[in-house]
Amino acid sequence: MSQSDKLFTVRSQMAMMGLDAVVILSSDQHLSEYIADFWKFREYLSGFNGSAGTLVITMDEAGLWTDSRYFLQAEQQLGDSGISLFRMGEPAVPEYRDFLAETLAPGNVVGLDARTMSVTDYKSFAAALKKNDIRIDGRLNLADEIWFDRDIIPEDDIFELEDEFTGMSRKDKIKVITDQMKQKGVTHYVVCALDEIAWMLNLRGSDVEYNPVFHAFMIVSQNHVNLFIDPHKVTSSVGKRLEDDNVRVFHYNDFYKFLRELPPHGEIYYDPQRTNYQTINSAPQTAGKIEGSSLITNEKSIKNKAEIAGARLAHINDGVAMVQFLMWLEENIGKTKLTELSCAEKLLTLRQNQPLFIGESFGCISAYGSNGAIVHYAPSEENDAELKPEGLYLLDSGGQYRNGTTDITRTIALGTLSDQQKTDYTLVLQGHIRIALAVFPEGIRGVHLDILARQALWQHGLNYGHGTGHGIGSFLNVHEGPQSIRPQDNGVTLKPGMITSNEPGLYRKGEYGIRIENLILCKEKTETSFGKFLDFDTITLCPIDKRPIKRELLGNDEIDWLNNYHKTVYELLSPKLNQLEKEWLKEATSAI
Amino acid sequence: MSQSDKLFTVRSQMAMMGLDAVVILSSDQHLSEYIADFWKFREYLSGFNGSAGTLVITMDEAGLWTDSRYFLQAEQQLGDSGISLFRMGEPAVPEYRDFLAETLAPGNVVGLDARTMSVTDYKSFAAALKKNDIRIDGRLNLADEIWFDRDIIPEDDIFELEDEFTGMSRKDKIKVITDQMKQKGVTHYVVCALDEIAWMLNLRGSDVEYNPVFHAFMIVSQNHVNLFIDPHKVTSSVGKRLEDDNVRVFHYNDFYKFLRELPPHGEIYYDPQRTNYQTINSAPQTAGKIEGSSLITNEKSIKNKAEIAGARLAHINDGVAMVQFLMWLEENIGKTKLTELSCAEKLLTLRQNQPLFIGESFGCISAYGSNGAIVHYAPSEENDAELKPEGLYLLDSGGQYRNGTTDITRTIALGTLSDQQKTDYTLVLQGHIRIALAVFPEGIRGVHLDILARQALWQHGLNYGHGTGHGIGSFLNVHEGPQSIRPQDNGVTLKPGMITSNEPGLYRKGEYGIRIENLILCKEKTETSFGKFLDFDTITLCPIDKRPIKRELLGNDEIDWLNNYHKTVYELLSPKLNQLEKEWLKEATSAI
Repeated sequence: MSQSDKLFTVRSQMAMMGLDAVVILSSDQHLSEYIADFWKFREYLSGFNGSAGTLVITMDEAGLWTDSRYFLQAEQQLGDSGISLFRMGEPAVPEYRDFLAETLAPGNVVGLDARTMSVTDYKSFAAALKKNDIRIDGRLNLADEIWFDRDIIPEDDIFELEDEFTGMSRKDKIKVITDQMKQKGVTHYVVCALDEIAWMLNLRGSDVEYNPVFHAFMIVSQNHVNLFIDPHKVTSSVGKRLEDDNVRVFHYNDFYKFLRELPPHGEIYYDPQRTNYQTINSAPQTAGKIEGSSLITNEKSIKNKAEIAGARLAHINDGVAMVQFLMWLEENIGKTKLTELSCAEKLLTLRQNQPLFIGESFGCISAYGSNGAIVHYAPSEENDAELKPEGLYLLDSGGQYRNGTTDITRTIALGTLSDQQKTDYTLVLQGHIRIALAVFPEGIRGVHLDILARQALWQHGLNYGHGTGHGIGSFLNVHEGPQSIRPQDNGVTLKPGMITSNEPGLYRKGEYGIRIENLILCKEKTETSFGKFLDFDTITLCPIDKRPIKRELLGNDEIDWLNNYHKTVYELLSPKLNQLEKEWLKEATSAI
Repeated sequence: MSQSDKLFTVRSQMAMMGLDAVVILSSDQHLSEYIADFWKFREYLSGFNGSAGTLVITMDEAGLWTDSRYFLQAEQQLGDSGISLFRMGEPAVPEYRDFLAETLAPGNVVGLDARTMSVTDYKSFAAALKKNDIRIDGRLNLADEIWFDRDIIPEDDIFELEDEFTGMSRKDKIKVITDQMKQKGVTHYVVCALDEIAWMLNLRGSDVEYNPVFHAFMIVSQNHVNLFIDPHKVTSSVGKRLEDDNVRVFHYNDFYKFLRELPPHGEIYYDPQRTNYQTINSAPQTAGKIEGSSLITNEKSIKNKAEIAGARLAHINDGVAMVQFLMWLEENIGKTKLTELSCAEKLLTLRQNQPLFIGESFGCISAYGSNGAIVHYAPSEENDAELKPEGLYLLDSGGQYRNGTTDITRTIALGTLSDQQKTDYTLVLQGHIRIALAVFPEGIRGVHLDILARQALWQHGLNYGHGTGHGIGSFLNVHEGPQSIRPQDNGVTLKPGMITSNEPGLYRKGEYGIRIENLILCKEKTETSFGKFLDFDTITLCPIDKRPIKRELLGNDEIDWLNNYHKTVYELLSPKLNQLEKEWLKEATSAI
């Protein structure tokens, strides 16, 4: 079908259903960051394949809303489809909710698949439309009606992650959560988020790129865990052990039906930001609804001893691959033809040699020169830049290992640098080190620490537009909550056992980008008469390029941190390296 | 009447009114920080005269809730009154609302003077009681019934503050506010807060200690400002000029009646945290109620050119008095008998010699040795400690000048100090300097900056329990909003023109206290391709004691700041000093 045929078909359906507009989101039912092809209906309808975008179709107009990362790509891909591009964040560009509120007439109805929108977003969208007396019909399922060559939901087997890696049996995890439910007077806890289900049941899958999760829903009651999953995915041995742990398996498609049949006077708990609206809409109206932050996400963020030990080992192995890569890069730059893609492939190959490696934890950001200034850059066959022996190369990558997930960024000098590049690099490094050196009492949140990463940059009139740190899973999603380090206050205190990224950056459009990222483990440092104090242990192990550093801009404590860090890197990685690699690392980690 | 007679009388009244409990707050109708004696009914009933405390009386029990500042004092003053002390913040001590919710029976009624509780607090109090089916009756006015030797509301004249100091005429201010009301579709803006009324009308008074305000309410409409005030306070000349500016004067007592007669379909705006509940309860139920942050407080916090120029002058004069005091202290310590009170009096005398001085801006915290560890310490005849030529002396004081309000803390070494005292002092100073040196983009809030003041202390396992900075008025209240620098997120961005205190501290119970406080003016620093950046200009002018500094703990930029600051202090103050004072200041401000 051509793009315009698709719009015609959608509008015919709208007419039949009595809808004045439809909103097609880019989400799946689980509100995942990465989604399977099955869910890419917005891409199918619009032709735009960026990860973020919302398609709005009325009888007269069609528009795609996306953010600045995708302006160029969306413009090209929308072409003459009849879909206008709405550049989010630009002056005079309305949000799609305001566009609808103003374009439609009172009494109009907007169709939406309420399975693809969080409870929080749905409520605020409905409130915005209600002001102009516009109603939402959340039952839209256009994809089933008109998308004939649709992919299927992946059917790969799920597998169990051993207790040696999870550090806690499925049974024990279920008890932790059901105990919390009891305390809160909750009869049923509904979970849509795939990484939460994987964590709780010590199961992993491969339905989605980069995230080792599988499609499922879960409803936890005091007596059972009800798992909704394609039965093909559950091998008989896994099924048996699930049964032993009181996990009952239902078909994936029976989730909403099961919800409708929940006890009419139950008390249902859910996280409104991680649960789709259809879920709550399906539960009995008479049942109590308790909104709160995800019980599982909160537990999952505090890594236990086995997870921490696993993460440390995974970071040694990941560091070995990184060191081999950096040495290879140094030896070949200017001699062999290297491109962004060939470097990313080389690094993947080196990671594949490491024990327990499963795959990449996200699409490698291999960005040379001005491409480094594009924060979410992904090299492709069309724009694959060649690396030259000059300027800066930004490499943000990570691995999924059975014992942990890694996420590391290094910015590497490929030749001589300008004074500005060196200053910029040193200020970013200074911010990185100040976070690494932070000490703080219990109760402190990411919003408090963020300035440590930025103050040196701000002093020079510089800044970066992304957060400083995100949580990371244990052989799970590379981005997870609830904690973060950023100027927005999320109300979440930092706790011992949390692993968070530390990744300040600086981006000069058209010139270059700099980012230095390690993962940091929060731990108890000391207890005084003023209370308990926490600090961070950097667990990523890989040299930070010293060549761009302006030593005179750093404080003595900051220089000490770098030298100590490099000493640790050498001590922990060198036993796994051959003689040449050791020598290279010795030099790369020598004191400044 | 004895304390127990008073309780008996209260309970008789409760029985007559059908109340099962009464709550007596320590607030006035304007929710002021400092209140006139007329409002001190909680003190009258309980005998406890601390500034913060809530008295709760049921038929069987009576309790006073206060915070750790007042535990000792409350214990002594309550004595055998039959009123139990509830130490707020201690484990197992319930909040008074929870105490009532648990003590009373469903169907019971709690009496409360709704004129003394903010809308925000009233709503959450009512919600807490409602869970147990307990109701509030907000019409309680026991003081009028049983307090016979009650003081009167002060009747002193109000006076006009000249445009040369306010920088903006009353007419212009009224226009700024009514324009904002128009934009918001507001017909009536109700103001209870005394400093907001004083600012808006360019009037000052002397009804309350330390704060140059007067008792009044204000209702701003598009055509008139309605001022509710004791007519005795308004001289005929002031009255005439108010009339010229469309300000109509009504009797103070007619405020609630006027509210009841507001148009039934008006749109009433108020700040729920600065407006008492009776106010909103009195307005017609059918009228729209729009809650939002105070329009006046937001305007008032951005000081205009005249206010900034006035503040700079006031700080020169205040600095002269401080220098004279510090020199006098140095010359007399160990030779003459000096006490906390005699020092505070000496400083007041020196301030009184300064042009445009009106009075102190708060009760002087003159605290020697271990008294310095009591954050809100106030010396009195009974506990007036003698200063000895050893240890640390903490002096937190300020002045009301017609051209500005000052607030300054210095911690002074009176003799040799321990190593710990020097380290503590240097870490507090380091935090102070890091705030003074802060650079930040537009949009940053106090919650982001707070860590700059604390990180050096935290690195040593130290901390302080109060905020780092509060807003300050222009010849108005020494504490004003909306901005602050503290770990709590108030959602308020820092803007050019705001004057805020910078006052990190450290308190070792039973040993000593350290605090270093200057006022800082927020201003634009630079604009780059990354946006506009702001920084601070320190406007307080007085040497910071160098003797306790451990130079090796400070960074070079921090040492530079101190030396530059001291250079400025000398340049701006020395023209106003005699030869001996100049020489003293030269030494006190010499570079470290």
